[in-house]
Amino acid sequence: MKPRLTVVTLGVKDLAASRKFYLQGLGWPASSAGNEHVTFIDAGGVVLALFGREALAADAQLPAEGRGFGGITLAHNVGSRAEVDAVLEEARTAGGAILKAAHETFWGGYSGYFADPDGYPWEVAHNPFWPLDSRGLVQLPP
Amino acid sequence: MKPRLTVVTLGVKDLAASRKFYLQGLGWPASSAGNEHVTFIDAGGVVLALFGREALAADAQLPAEGRGFGGITLAHNVGSRAEVDAVLEEARTAGGAILKAAHETFWGGYSGYFADPDGYPWEVAHNPFWPLDSRGLVQLPP
Repeated sequence: MKPRLTVVTLGVKDLAASRKFYLQGLGWPASSAGNEHVTFIDAGGVVLALFGREALAADAQLPAEGRGFGGITLAHNVGSRAEVDAVLEEARTAGGAILKAAHETFWGGYSGYFADPDGYPWEVAHNPFWPLDSRGLVQLPP
Repeated sequence: MKPRLTVVTLGVKDLAASRKFYLQGLGWPASSAGNEHVTFIDAGGVVLALFGREALAADAQLPAEGRGFGGITLAHNVGSRAEVDAVLEEARTAGGAILKAAHETFWGGYSGYFADPDGYPWEVAHNPFWPLDSRGLVQLPP
């Protein structure tokens, strides 16, 4: 199996509210590939999909019930501390809850977390050890 | 906020078991950037990180408790139906649970799902409407 993660799908309780948050609040463009049941966003090197939570669980043949921390976090790396602050403020204005204010991290960077309308955690981080490439993506050392 | 998802972190119950699954079972290379607490994998256009679940929740300032469907699924797109079958078999051999056998989907493709050691669902899919680029990643229409 090649090391490839091609799509991350967020199971959402209210697709309209999630579309409003990501597309209007954060200003992310939706692909024409979507429809009234699913929204696809080109997130740089991976597709981010918004799909109804119950339908997503059913698609994976899993019970839809779940509560608390889902176990997965998402990150958005930026090129400076000022950008971390700006993005967190943008997320807050869009209605995201700030889980953790921006701060110097134990690993030598600067980051904070917000939650989207479903509580999915996004870390917004400046990692001086991980420069971003021309697409704004992290280039990991081999 | 630019539409960029740079890192997906899986909060895992047993880092050694997850490393064994992804690195040995699926054959994914770990970046030298990791250490005994975190494993980083270049997943094509996004970094996949394996980190202790409790530590991850603490990092996001969230209670660690959670159960059931976490709400997020991951996908691995491949170029043919035969590859879907082969990858699902590889995941099963590695110890992944097959959640859903490969089948023709309502959206016109062919896919199945497996679960990693923490139960995180991976869809392995051939989508004839979404050709893969030279990096094996999906190119969404604008």
